[in-house]
Amino acid sequence: MANLKEVAKLAGVSPTTVSRVLNNHPHVNKDTRNKVHQIIEELNYIPNINAINLIKGKTNLIGIVIPFSNYPYFSQLIQGISEVATQKNKKVVLFQTSYDSKQELEALEMLKLKQLDSLIICSRNISIATIESYLQYGPISIFENIKNTTLHTTYIDHYHAFKHALQYLYKLGHRDIGCVINRRNSSSSIQRLSAYKDFCLEHHIPIKEELIFENYALLEDGKALYESLKKTKTIPSAIVISSDHTAAGLYLSLSETERKNFSIIGFENQEISTLLNITTVDIPLHTIGIQLFKQLSNNSITQTKFDTHLIKRHSVFKLKD
Amino acid sequence: MANLKEVAKLAGVSPTTVSRVLNNHPHVNKDTRNKVHQIIEELNYIPNINAINLIKGKTNLIGIVIPFSNYPYFSQLIQGISEVATQKNKKVVLFQTSYDSKQELEALEMLKLKQLDSLIICSRNISIATIESYLQYGPISIFENIKNTTLHTTYIDHYHAFKHALQYLYKLGHRDIGCVINRRNSSSSIQRLSAYKDFCLEHHIPIKEELIFENYALLEDGKALYESLKKTKTIPSAIVISSDHTAAGLYLSLSETERKNFSIIGFENQEISTLLNITTVDIPLHTIGIQLFKQLSNNSITQTKFDTHLIKRHSVFKLKD
Repeated sequence: MANLKEVAKLAGVSPTTVSRVLNNHPHVNKDTRNKVHQIIEELNYIPNINAINLIKGKTNLIGIVIPFSNYPYFSQLIQGISEVATQKNKKVVLFQTSYDSKQELEALEMLKLKQLDSLIICSRNISIATIESYLQYGPISIFENIKNTTLHTTYIDHYHAFKHALQYLYKLGHRDIGCVINRRNSSSSIQRLSAYKDFCLEHHIPIKEELIFENYALLEDGKALYESLKKTKTIPSAIVISSDHTAAGLYLSLSETERKNFSIIGFENQEISTLLNITTVDIPLHTIGIQLFKQLSNNSITQTKFDTHLIKRHSVFKLKD
Repeated sequence: MANLKEVAKLAGVSPTTVSRVLNNHPHVNKDTRNKVHQIIEELNYIPNINAINLIKGKTNLIGIVIPFSNYPYFSQLIQGISEVATQKNKKVVLFQTSYDSKQELEALEMLKLKQLDSLIICSRNISIATIESYLQYGPISIFENIKNTTLHTTYIDHYHAFKHALQYLYKLGHRDIGCVINRRNSSSSIQRLSAYKDFCLEHHIPIKEELIFENYALLEDGKALYESLKKTKTIPSAIVISSDHTAAGLYLSLSETERKNFSIIGFENQEISTLLNITTVDIPLHTIGIQLFKQLSNNSITQTKFDTHLIKRHSVFKLKD
């Protein structure tokens, strides 16, 4: 099979020029371009783009580190990232890690080995220090609120968002409020729990460990949450849940009567919360995905904060005295 | 920076042997392996894997052609494919096409240019003939029921599954049955509509175009479907919907009374249908994703059919005379 060198030789140009023609590089004159295309056609040459990328030192591949593809939270991030990647003529490589550090590290190693141009980390298990040590090999953006980092960050203020939801319930008379998170040691859960504990302290509400529920994220988890709630000594009058899907699952597990006497606030503003009229906190995941991608091409470190908004619907009630 | 050739020279072996050591190839003796590793360490050599892949003619990258990442139907396929890819130490490149033929073609071109080892097509817009013309460059599997193709296929019998659901409703006395699909010209919709029309003909039921609803796939579409249903001249007593999410959206839009007088059958067996107790047809999407990946390594063309199952729950009623 013909190779790039032969094309160059027959066209009377350098291999770099052939590579430029193949990549539609602007600085090649029209005659040269035509000549190269003519030879390519004559030889029936199929360029091995990997060889060209090797010369350029670029792959046009962007890695996405994500624990699961089938969680609505993450699939919306993928959707946003992929949309903008397509526009920019880049391809995304998915590292679906199930929070396995080894898989996360493999993505970083591929950046080091120049198999990826850059990396987007949507959620992670390994340390920030480890991630930062790979910055020398290419840009990395992360969906997380981190202070003093050299990574690009896109984030929301989980502490503020969670506390705002709790304050809203407090104003409506609620004192026994449950708090539902997913992975207890994740960066966002730590912020949320901190907001919950500060809220309790500020209002002289005793912190009850039995009202903190962890490892709930999916629709089906809502049913399990319902069962857990029935077993608590203190029956809460309201609950703040870090996932709309779990909130919806819980809502659908309640009887009609229970629904009228129990206040629920979800997070994310997913379709299901609109449909069920569940009060939620909007997180613009699709736009966050786009921003995580865009940050990669910035020369200086950027930190982008997205605001969250409490969307008041019909799953929260004023507590009767 | 040190390169592979220098490592080979200092270790007294060929570049191919160095490449084999880096790829954990079994046929390298232990002494040679140790020697190469020692030189790599001395030179602080970072292998450019792209150069190694170029020698091997492999990238370990598998393309996935998918219209959207944030539809539960597709995100489950991605989840299955990525799980098995991770086990096999392959990476997946996502081509999120929005059914744009240009994007689909780009995936095929990347296969041709050896930027991908193989390709999985979950749903497509371009012709099968076009796809088949790329088979010379690498294996391709497709989630579609196609006769006489040289592609690997994994499929379900949409015709049979849809008809079975309709027959079930017929036995319970239903005659005015609505039919809800997504893209009218997709391969699966064509099979479903054909089942619907054959069913009507066999039972001497007039085919009413107003009872065929198209472009419904998501949860929020269920609300729009509810509005459309209210406008039909013939009010159906039952409906078969090709998406559980739309079925759930419709179910949640109905009043309590309407729910007891209207039969719904969804498709896919998504979490939401379990939670709402909606009768559905199970499609093992996760397993299908795994199979689509596995087929790629078969030497001969394989066609794998997955069975579907009607799961009877509480959204279907016997029609009173």
